[in-house]
Amino acid sequence: MITSAEKLALLRAALKQNSISAYIIPLSDPHLSENIPDHWKIIQWLTGFTGSAATVVITDSFAGLWTDSRYFIQAKKQLAGSGFELVVPKSFQPSDYTQWLSENIKTGDRIAFDGRSFSIAHLRKLEKRLENKNVSFENNRDLITEIWCDRPLMPAKMAWDHPAEFSGKGRDRKIAEVREQMKRQSVDLHLLTSAEDIMWMLNIRGNDLDYSPLLLSFALISEKQILLFTDYKKIPVPLASDLRKLNIVILPYEETTSALSTSTESSSILLTPSATSVTLYNSIPKSIRIIEDISIPARLKSIKNKTEIKNISDVMVKDGIALVKFFFWIENIIAQFPITEISLAHKILELRLQQKDFLGPSFETITAFNEHSALPHYVPSAESDSEIGENGILLIDSGGQYMGGTTDITRTISIGVPVSQQKKDFTLVLKGHIALAQAKFPMGTRGYQLDLLARKALWERGLNYGHGSGHGVGYCLNVHEGPQNISPADNKTIIEAGMLISNEPGIYREGEYGIRTENLIICFEDEETEFGQFLCFDTVSLCYIDRRLIDKSLLDYKEINWLNSYHSQVYEKLNPYLSEAEKVWLKDKTEPV
Amino acid sequence: MITSAEKLALLRAALKQNSISAYIIPLSDPHLSENIPDHWKIIQWLTGFTGSAATVVITDSFAGLWTDSRYFIQAKKQLAGSGFELVVPKSFQPSDYTQWLSENIKTGDRIAFDGRSFSIAHLRKLEKRLENKNVSFENNRDLITEIWCDRPLMPAKMAWDHPAEFSGKGRDRKIAEVREQMKRQSVDLHLLTSAEDIMWMLNIRGNDLDYSPLLLSFALISEKQILLFTDYKKIPVPLASDLRKLNIVILPYEETTSALSTSTESSSILLTPSATSVTLYNSIPKSIRIIEDISIPARLKSIKNKTEIKNISDVMVKDGIALVKFFFWIENIIAQFPITEISLAHKILELRLQQKDFLGPSFETITAFNEHSALPHYVPSAESDSEIGENGILLIDSGGQYMGGTTDITRTISIGVPVSQQKKDFTLVLKGHIALAQAKFPMGTRGYQLDLLARKALWERGLNYGHGSGHGVGYCLNVHEGPQNISPADNKTIIEAGMLISNEPGIYREGEYGIRTENLIICFEDEETEFGQFLCFDTVSLCYIDRRLIDKSLLDYKEINWLNSYHSQVYEKLNPYLSEAEKVWLKDKTEPV
Repeated sequence: MITSAEKLALLRAALKQNSISAYIIPLSDPHLSENIPDHWKIIQWLTGFTGSAATVVITDSFAGLWTDSRYFIQAKKQLAGSGFELVVPKSFQPSDYTQWLSENIKTGDRIAFDGRSFSIAHLRKLEKRLENKNVSFENNRDLITEIWCDRPLMPAKMAWDHPAEFSGKGRDRKIAEVREQMKRQSVDLHLLTSAEDIMWMLNIRGNDLDYSPLLLSFALISEKQILLFTDYKKIPVPLASDLRKLNIVILPYEETTSALSTSTESSSILLTPSATSVTLYNSIPKSIRIIEDISIPARLKSIKNKTEIKNISDVMVKDGIALVKFFFWIENIIAQFPITEISLAHKILELRLQQKDFLGPSFETITAFNEHSALPHYVPSAESDSEIGENGILLIDSGGQYMGGTTDITRTISIGVPVSQQKKDFTLVLKGHIALAQAKFPMGTRGYQLDLLARKALWERGLNYGHGSGHGVGYCLNVHEGPQNISPADNKTIIEAGMLISNEPGIYREGEYGIRTENLIICFEDEETEFGQFLCFDTVSLCYIDRRLIDKSLLDYKEINWLNSYHSQVYEKLNPYLSEAEKVWLKDKTEPV
Repeated sequence: MITSAEKLALLRAALKQNSISAYIIPLSDPHLSENIPDHWKIIQWLTGFTGSAATVVITDSFAGLWTDSRYFIQAKKQLAGSGFELVVPKSFQPSDYTQWLSENIKTGDRIAFDGRSFSIAHLRKLEKRLENKNVSFENNRDLITEIWCDRPLMPAKMAWDHPAEFSGKGRDRKIAEVREQMKRQSVDLHLLTSAEDIMWMLNIRGNDLDYSPLLLSFALISEKQILLFTDYKKIPVPLASDLRKLNIVILPYEETTSALSTSTESSSILLTPSATSVTLYNSIPKSIRIIEDISIPARLKSIKNKTEIKNISDVMVKDGIALVKFFFWIENIIAQFPITEISLAHKILELRLQQKDFLGPSFETITAFNEHSALPHYVPSAESDSEIGENGILLIDSGGQYMGGTTDITRTISIGVPVSQQKKDFTLVLKGHIALAQAKFPMGTRGYQLDLLARKALWERGLNYGHGSGHGVGYCLNVHEGPQNISPADNKTIIEAGMLISNEPGIYREGEYGIRTENLIICFEDEETEFGQFLCFDTVSLCYIDRRLIDKSLLDYKEINWLNSYHSQVYEKLNPYLSEAEKVWLKDKTEPV
């Protein structure tokens, strides 16, 4: 097998041959989504790094990888000996390879990348950063295909209909709503590049990716017609016929660029710069005015409808049953024979598979013991797989795709007897979790205004975590799905009633342990006063929180009330589906503190 | 005197004559600052509205004024009968005249404005909003000069040297620092359009505006030379000679545009789009690359140096003495003979004038009784001036310009016996104030992340306020001076050690009363942990907080500790400068709760 160092040497030879000073490889595909098919996992193939966010820059004397703080520890390990170095930013500033380029690139240098998987927003940012450098960009340089001999093909799995009992709204109505918004924004074309937008609008799902039920596709909406770019063989005949009735024309995936370039009769197009590749963007005729904004389906689908909310709460019961059975199993098995992190991941999948309408995990399960749990996105591998010992911290972050929703939940439990620092850390994280769960805020509030709620108890003691406090969650779609989130970043999206968001503060002590408590919350309307309409959250995930890790002296009475009332809800909703032994056990786990 | 309606008719005639569909009048001057000379107070002359933020749009059938929520009540009153209507946005979204234009302007319409007082950033926003409308813009249309017959001239007051004992750093060193940053950013020209930037860099001050000690000027910095555009007669001879030694060339204010347009030998210029007028921007030769960012002095001057911090704390003692004497005077006089809001404003100025190195008020004093205090920026006028009655809420927001710093402080006191809702409101505002004062946060935190601290106690009870929680404060410069602030808006500036910021939550009950408690806070370094460097604030303003308005049952022990310790500091620092009677009185006012 060819090593990373050898691949790097091949790439450097190609750089030299093509007079390229720097080659940029983003971790992305033509849809610019987080979850990408193996065909586009260039960075993993090249460097060995398996995290879900990264950028690589290669020059003749440098090969660096940037990622975010949740992956620092993991990247350091995976890159050892690869010839690639991890570039870590100073303090809590976001990491940025453009900064490195601006400091290291020479005036007149030539920078290349593959424009098919590079967003136009990203290119602009790069151009702006380097505007003083007089560099040239080569937008269409694919140096990978010819050296990646065993590159996986693009997926070719069948799509399927997502019925109205789950979606709550027919595809005809959704399309009408999108067109109505297009009219309001005075655009006659709308390019959808994110497969999840198309899935939502057309009430279809696919099997192209491991964790998101997506059919990889593009769509171009006009007043009368929708062009759907995908492999027509992936659409079952009855579904294709239904689509045809709505004047949805299926064209080959590869023809998106040429269809765009020939749509000269249109006058304006709405697209999302962060989700549109340089190649697609540049194929739009110059005569068309480009309107840039978040896509219309992205905004519409972030507000869950009543059917979806009802289904989500049913799904939470199923997911909660699997989780409770899982933790019951752990506590009973652990004294009897050794279990490892990987076997835990298998077990939780086995238990979710017993639930009706379960489709598969919504992301790679994190089962992390002690020092592994200090890596916020650790996933056990054959080499790293550890036995769960007699004492320590076990962090399980997992989720499922169900016909009626997507789940994502993290619990951190104590194995053996916790030490006082672990209890203190766990309780401070819990205080943040409860503060966000109990938030009440006026209409118009953005996620970044709420982020502090989840951190305050930690900050007061000089502690912090390097990831956001909450991400938007899709509905039988991506587990990370905006536009809303709750994080320090300046996301202008306001939090609205019907939005589903995670609530997941944490703390990570390198080499020791990590703690995270995550539930999903849905935004609801609270009271209206003379100061306007107020909103609040309802916690929908159902699983007990380990009381053995709570230092009650750090909680105030409101926090204790929240916890006890949450626990009583967990017991009430789940106990009808448990065995007698499990019931008794859960009753104990959910006793008031 | 010509009425607003008559002026509007004249403007509409001019619109018709020039085939203009809509004319936009911003409340700004060529420096795009908040504080502007009378010469540019077009909106006040035209509509009667005296607030500090507004935009007017005039068409043949519509005349509207937009402002922010703190002025809604005031604007409604002042616009009555003017022919101009106040446009109030829905919910807590910021008001936006561009939204109105996009909904009401017709395709092909012609929009005009005076580019001398319209920022390029603003024009871009407008163009973006109307990109679908195919409108044309006329950038250099001054319709005001010919109908405003008695328009005030531009100010012509002398500038003066701000000595190093106050500035803490010589102008030569400051200029060198700015040039060093220019080199780092690879720019060979830097255009300064904000007078406060020039004042800071050159250690000079002026008297051109009522509340900010500014010399209205522009500056163009190159590697070897600085062009200072102002009236040379306003620079005292010794100061001019000092400036000349540093190769600072004084040119007429009006020549900024032509000097810019002829600087063809330069290759790049740094400027701030939000502070650069369309006229100036368009005068830059096309051959020069324009780099857009916040100005270098704006960033440097926001971090106060050690001398400045020392001087600020001395100034706070002076300001505190004036305030305590003022409130002592109120309590003693009120029973004896009637006082009005305006007489209070006079009294506080009289007491500040007794302090050494006091230059004048830093903004128009707000003295507001009962329903007037519900207007966050109410300033008493001859018509509105009210007598302070026997019972109610009195809000005083005032500040001073001193050689060693700028102050801004609000106290709300009870006259007579407060009702329980007043006490509850006051205490909830105080909880927010204390939470922000006690904030501890990691390096890299932005102001919008902290804003919630000041609001949480209010939000929990369905209450809120429509302004930011804190603004940056200049040093013997503007009382509102960024780039930092603490507000819900997405300001990317991080809060750094040395920054001076206000802490001013409030609550306003229309027709009843308003409450605000404001101190200035300086950011300092707190502990460094394995999670990074943490920062905190130190409260520097010194004046008691009215205990009669506190409902102690709503405070927790940490809040009570903060208040008692703040009060003991107020007493310790101020009592040496008070009369015996004042001492006894302040001792009582600062007793522990």
